[in-house]
Amino acid sequence: MAGSSTETSKWVTLSITLTLATLSASAAISVFFRSKRREKHINELEKSLKESLKKCAAERQGRIRAQQDLRNAMLQPKTDKLETTYPMAPIGIIRSCFSTRNGTPRQPLIVPLARARLTFDTALVPLASLEGLEEYSHCWIIYVFHLNTDLDKLWKNPSRSKLKAKVRVPRLKGEKMGLFATRSPHRPCPIGLTVAKVESIQGSSILLSGVDLVDGTPVLDVKPYLPYCDSIEGASVPDWVKMDDLLAVASVDFTDDFLATLTDCWPTIDKKSLYTSPEEFQNLIKQVLSWDIRSVSQRTQVEENYEKTKNEQIYNNEVQDVIYHLNLEGLDVAYRITSDSNVLVENVTFPPK
Amino acid sequence: MAGSSTETSKWVTLSITLTLATLSASAAISVFFRSKRREKHINELEKSLKESLKKCAAERQGRIRAQQDLRNAMLQPKTDKLETTYPMAPIGIIRSCFSTRNGTPRQPLIVPLARARLTFDTALVPLASLEGLEEYSHCWIIYVFHLNTDLDKLWKNPSRSKLKAKVRVPRLKGEKMGLFATRSPHRPCPIGLTVAKVESIQGSSILLSGVDLVDGTPVLDVKPYLPYCDSIEGASVPDWVKMDDLLAVASVDFTDDFLATLTDCWPTIDKKSLYTSPEEFQNLIKQVLSWDIRSVSQRTQVEENYEKTKNEQIYNNEVQDVIYHLNLEGLDVAYRITSDSNVLVENVTFPPK
Repeated sequence: MAGSSTETSKWVTLSITLTLATLSASAAISVFFRSKRREKHINELEKSLKESLKKCAAERQGRIRAQQDLRNAMLQPKTDKLETTYPMAPIGIIRSCFSTRNGTPRQPLIVPLARARLTFDTALVPLASLEGLEEYSHCWIIYVFHLNTDLDKLWKNPSRSKLKAKVRVPRLKGEKMGLFATRSPHRPCPIGLTVAKVESIQGSSILLSGVDLVDGTPVLDVKPYLPYCDSIEGASVPDWVKMDDLLAVASVDFTDDFLATLTDCWPTIDKKSLYTSPEEFQNLIKQVLSWDIRSVSQRTQVEENYEKTKNEQIYNNEVQDVIYHLNLEGLDVAYRITSDSNVLVENVTFPPK
Repeated sequence: MAGSSTETSKWVTLSITLTLATLSASAAISVFFRSKRREKHINELEKSLKESLKKCAAERQGRIRAQQDLRNAMLQPKTDKLETTYPMAPIGIIRSCFSTRNGTPRQPLIVPLARARLTFDTALVPLASLEGLEEYSHCWIIYVFHLNTDLDKLWKNPSRSKLKAKVRVPRLKGEKMGLFATRSPHRPCPIGLTVAKVESIQGSSILLSGVDLVDGTPVLDVKPYLPYCDSIEGASVPDWVKMDDLLAVASVDFTDDFLATLTDCWPTIDKKSLYTSPEEFQNLIKQVLSWDIRSVSQRTQVEENYEKTKNEQIYNNEVQDVIYHLNLEGLDVAYRITSDSNVLVENVTFPPK
């Protein structure tokens, strides 16, 4: 009897031992692997934190320098700064459907519904001086890149301004080119040149269409487009410059309730709008978004995320989680874009003041 | 004996059991706590990354705001006389074959041999900024109409300058048009726009051809000619604007000894000339004079004389008595033109200093 009971207790003890050992071993192993993944995550976090802190310091320096310059600008008399420069007084201001640079087309006439009203300063532009302009189909607009944040440096001391000699080219996915081989706004003399369709002349203002001008642009001159001077047969460009490098999207769709939402907003902008109805405004949105208007950095960032998710074998072609914004006539238009560039316009609101 | 042996084995087993259990348990526990510490570390890292990114965005906003204020500060009236103006510093100067306005073509590319060297101010234009421009066949030149006699009035007080709202149009035999329906140099903002052929880039200068620019023209900007933006298919102009209204002459001939005279002058201008030989220079003269370059008033005056002589029944088709002058590369070219617009180039000399 005693023997058998001992046997039993021995086996019990053994089995307990083994169970305990196995359990704790497996626990240790699983914890070990989880902690390895954590290790990786920690390294990634530490890396991006370091980068972010570096960027932060740079921005801080930039802010401080700008504020110092501002202080000096307020103190010094401005007159003695204007040596060997021609003072150019704008003859008018552009009121455009594009409230911000983001979404403003990178070239003219690709968004036919892109409208603007150029209102002349009647002190500089007598009405008679516009007679005959309406008989032309198109005109040149020579304007100031007034949103360049480095303008002040150019005015103060052109030769010392930190102007970049080479600029990243969107159609080269960010590769660099000499700035004079591009139409970049960051030029020694920040003058822009664009062509627009002359819709009509109303008193001291011209209604234009197909514009690539942002709202508030100061205009220096308007000239008629003369095909026999301005349209050069057989003019050639480098291989990297190609019209179809403008990134067209696959499709632009609107959520079912979009038009209703837009129609609710309409009364507020109706009076000052360049468009006659919510439907026409929706067509503008469709035309603007039929080109990928995202910045190179925005695009590449999304592509990286796409690669990451794909590698994790869980990627599918659903709309991605980034919401982009476009501001037209003061209205905030929210949209998403899939990795195969189908655009879904989701909402329109008044941006927070 | 047997009993004691069982006892022993039992105790051994038990002690092994306990040891094993304790070991694996403690292992599990320690790994558990280490991973807990990591968890905490990750949360901390994620928290500070989030904060850093927030701070970074704030600094960026601050920088942009400060730069915008600075920009506005720079744009405030320079004196109580001046309106808000943009000071434009020329980036280079044109050295053109056309020494004076008289003879300078009224539009680009109609005189293929019309050459100019645009030399950049290297303080404003680093060499790298020109990289890639040579790959384009044509470029825009945005310049100042520096020979307008009313410039100073414009700078001092744009709104009070005696700018004419309507200008005489050569192709309309002097009929008037609103200035913005023309390319007249007399504009509220005296900025010119022309296109030229890019021949080559030599260091800090571009060699251009087909120019309609007068020597000494200050250049504000150079942009590549982009056919898909700048060449507009089906752009229309008013009926009065027609290429063939540019008055082509019937013929251009030279007196027998002209080339000899030119060859005598050549050594003096050879070094700084844009042309390689007297023969090439003679071809330039022929191209320039194959368009009637006389002013409207010059032409009408001659026509009146022609009418007078005709009425006096003594008119014949001989070369008339008026001698016109053209200044190319500092050389004075003398020519006559018959009533049926045959040009005879008679002489070339150095103009009196």
